[in-house]
Amino acid sequence: MDLYEALYTTRAMRRVKPDPIPLDVQQRIMDAAVRAPSGGNQQGWRFLLVDDQATKEKLAPLYKDAVGKLWETFYAGQLAEAEARPNDPDSISFLKVQKSANWLGDHFAEVPLFLFPFTQFDPTGSSIYPAVWSAMLAARAEGIGSCITVILSFFYPNEVNEILGVPTEEGWAMQGCISLGYPTGTWGVATRRPAHEVTYRNQWATDVGFETTEPLWPPRT
Amino acid sequence: MDLYEALYTTRAMRRVKPDPIPLDVQQRIMDAAVRAPSGGNQQGWRFLLVDDQATKEKLAPLYKDAVGKLWETFYAGQLAEAEARPNDPDSISFLKVQKSANWLGDHFAEVPLFLFPFTQFDPTGSSIYPAVWSAMLAARAEGIGSCITVILSFFYPNEVNEILGVPTEEGWAMQGCISLGYPTGTWGVATRRPAHEVTYRNQWATDVGFETTEPLWPPRT
Repeated sequence: MDLYEALYTTRAMRRVKPDPIPLDVQQRIMDAAVRAPSGGNQQGWRFLLVDDQATKEKLAPLYKDAVGKLWETFYAGQLAEAEARPNDPDSISFLKVQKSANWLGDHFAEVPLFLFPFTQFDPTGSSIYPAVWSAMLAARAEGIGSCITVILSFFYPNEVNEILGVPTEEGWAMQGCISLGYPTGTWGVATRRPAHEVTYRNQWATDVGFETTEPLWPPRT
Repeated sequence: MDLYEALYTTRAMRRVKPDPIPLDVQQRIMDAAVRAPSGGNQQGWRFLLVDDQATKEKLAPLYKDAVGKLWETFYAGQLAEAEARPNDPDSISFLKVQKSANWLGDHFAEVPLFLFPFTQFDPTGSSIYPAVWSAMLAARAEGIGSCITVILSFFYPNEVNEILGVPTEEGWAMQGCISLGYPTGTWGVATRRPAHEVTYRNQWATDVGFETTEPLWPPRT
């Protein structure tokens, strides 16, 4: 797969089929992931693949509860606003994300594979999320949808660490949970605020010197 | 460029030529970067491209100093060990990274372009480093080398924010500094600890079920 196609079409794909992901595909994903950079090339990372049904069923109620907490805390204001004005474009987009997130909350144990990344002493996340995003891009090339979520680390880190046997006393910390599975939907370019609106040059809030109204991929012929 | 080629060969490329990066190339890089995921698709990010010589010269001494501090603090132990046993493979690798990092410390103002990413309220980094890594991968496809470094945010966040005019009172926080330029060296697959040594299945410290001694890319024919 072309790099730009992967970068433009690897969107959050929460709704997936229960079909298992073959071991050789998992291997290609992880072999690509560990090529990512990490501070001083320290590779202070571990990855835990979870496909055991009993383990997923222990995690599922925690995840469902965390999703509920998300709407009651971080996104309470946005949710109230979206529900008050359900026909606004921003509301439509927000409620779509909410519905999709709730799907994962309700169907966690049916997702065939999860990837839990861990780091030791990475205060910024810069030494783990490149590897995580590489795994998600490689998954895309393999026809596998993924979604990164960090809500388990916000709401239930201790419970998850205990279920997975993580030696937290050694400083290992969960950095999220990535769902992986063959998608039920179709790939497409996600809607985003244009680059020139969020990019400045040399000083904050200056014009960056280019402007794009439509995504540059796929190339117009 | 093939996705896997990009994932395997986008290694830290600190040594670059002073040649400027054309605006349309910068635009393609940033247009790809903003397709990355962010928590709840909030896109709470800003990017600042720095190519102004005077601005780079203000940042350069801070960066050089931060590199020096790095060896005196985080990596002091490893450096002492590497210098004591310079012929060990680990030492050779560490001293190579150090030499390369020092090059960037000494030549900061000669690098044609820097990308500074910022987020509002992203405690994990999971909502910015996918976009940053996408920018670095897109740069790779454009023949541009990059390196992510977070040392300015560790040692001189206030000074850098002031130089760049960042409204920190609004919660915007610098998440690193990515150098960009046409490389003087050649691309290659970086050496990493194999995936199966850092990946477990269902429980910490278990066998993941696959083993790879050589990188899976390029494919063996």
